[in-house]
Amino acid sequence: MSVVVVGSMAFDDIETPFGKSDKIVGGAATYIAYAASNFVQPVQLVSIVGYDFPTDEMETLKQRGAVLEGIEMVPDKKSFFWSGRYHMDMNTRDTLITDLNVLGDFNPVLPESYRDAEFVMLGNLAPAVQKQVIQQMNKRPKLIVLDTMNFWMEVALEGLLEVISMVDVLMVNDSEARQLTGEYSIVKAAKKILTMGPKYLVVKKGEHGALLFHGNNVFFAPALPLEEVFDPTGAGDTFAGGFIGHLAKTKDISFENMKTAIIFGSAMASFCVEKFGVQRVKEVTKTEIEGRLQEFVQLVNFDIALG
Amino acid sequence: MSVVVVGSMAFDDIETPFGKSDKIVGGAATYIAYAASNFVQPVQLVSIVGYDFPTDEMETLKQRGAVLEGIEMVPDKKSFFWSGRYHMDMNTRDTLITDLNVLGDFNPVLPESYRDAEFVMLGNLAPAVQKQVIQQMNKRPKLIVLDTMNFWMEVALEGLLEVISMVDVLMVNDSEARQLTGEYSIVKAAKKILTMGPKYLVVKKGEHGALLFHGNNVFFAPALPLEEVFDPTGAGDTFAGGFIGHLAKTKDISFENMKTAIIFGSAMASFCVEKFGVQRVKEVTKTEIEGRLQEFVQLVNFDIALG
Repeated sequence: MSVVVVGSMAFDDIETPFGKSDKIVGGAATYIAYAASNFVQPVQLVSIVGYDFPTDEMETLKQRGAVLEGIEMVPDKKSFFWSGRYHMDMNTRDTLITDLNVLGDFNPVLPESYRDAEFVMLGNLAPAVQKQVIQQMNKRPKLIVLDTMNFWMEVALEGLLEVISMVDVLMVNDSEARQLTGEYSIVKAAKKILTMGPKYLVVKKGEHGALLFHGNNVFFAPALPLEEVFDPTGAGDTFAGGFIGHLAKTKDISFENMKTAIIFGSAMASFCVEKFGVQRVKEVTKTEIEGRLQEFVQLVNFDIALG
Repeated sequence: MSVVVVGSMAFDDIETPFGKSDKIVGGAATYIAYAASNFVQPVQLVSIVGYDFPTDEMETLKQRGAVLEGIEMVPDKKSFFWSGRYHMDMNTRDTLITDLNVLGDFNPVLPESYRDAEFVMLGNLAPAVQKQVIQQMNKRPKLIVLDTMNFWMEVALEGLLEVISMVDVLMVNDSEARQLTGEYSIVKAAKKILTMGPKYLVVKKGEHGALLFHGNNVFFAPALPLEEVFDPTGAGDTFAGGFIGHLAKTKDISFENMKTAIIFGSAMASFCVEKFGVQRVKEVTKTEIEGRLQEFVQLVNFDIALG
């Protein structure tokens, strides 16, 4: 089984109240691929990079089961660059610099070997690009998951609504769910979004966990309470990688299994924030993942006698 | 078995983005008593009211198993009055008016029949008053739970730290836990607080649920995702009432049973916010409570195969 992952591969420069990263490798597809590769291989990447993207990062990704055939390399341009500064609460940040570079010309062409994949993870990108990927698949995948952000609601709402109507799972954070629907109540916002196309909605709430909505069902997964949050960059992408990775591995897209996938995603995200960039997600071991899943079980497990 | 509940009995005037309450009955002890009475009776109240506190409210409380012997009535003064306005997010509010009235002279004297209670719930009040209550008990109760707020950290920190050192469970919200310890990380704040006396710490996060810390253990209970939050006033007190009510009923103060108590507290709080004031907490039925507990089980229940 395989999973197609679409998204940026980039450089980030991150400042938090606790430190500064300098220019390091980032990008949605990078985080998603590292996280997903713990569960499923190959991870078929679709992205675009400039001449400056490090070859040793590509090599590491390959060793982790990523297929790079769908990554376009533009020899005379730089990779996408983002720089941001987190506030004290680590939940909000200011963007300092966004250099689109190669990302401005991204017109993905899917290799033939990707086009029968059953699982597709559309990382945060322009909705038009996300749509192009869906249209190049030979048949409707078993599951398409879409991640997006407030920026596209402001500059490309029509295109975003179109691609939302084409997917099975939408992933947004709580303020984005509100912005997309004009509803303050997350429950009401979820009901509206579930009429826009997706059968499932994941609402990410950062340190406050994540909600999964499906029909009239709702599931809540907490975030692990961490002593130190070092860098939240990529936590949402890492969450998405764990989520799609577990689903692609098990090939089970029931509500019950989506709940489990959310827990796997939350576990992966809890590693991501412990170090700058992809560092921690790259080095995490199967034993560490199992340990953290056990912590999740402990965290929410309670006995209640009803009747 | 019985539980002693100390706190204000008051009038509130509440404004939310969705409506205005006019002057209605409120106060920590009122909310706690109504919530706790679903689990344990009698609820031995300690409070102070003025000539204006409605006798029919007293009558209703009595019918719900409250003992009013410890409520002082001051014939020539008014009851405590609070007026506030909630912001759009319903998590933050501005206080418009605080008229202490009778509360300024509160020197509680516990009736002899209260002094052997095994469970004591100290609702939000001046730390000196909370301490007076503890000192009047004939023997150390099995469990003392303390609720407080940021105001006392600012005007009576020394007294607050003293009473904190005398109790078993401290209940605060997340920003209060941060303020009390100077730690931004809730996990670090919890570790500090657990060196100040209490063996248990409950951190209330409003719509984001609640955390229970004990030694190196942590438990998380979500808040029920609600379509409408009508009035958050008293939700924390109602939570406390469900929490102490379940513990006093079962007389089991283990960590496992505290987890269950947190779920009962969260269920009660989810009713509280559905209407203005104590209205919803007063009318709730056992069947409704059981239904909501079932929703909590569904909300967090997941299967994971480890190993």
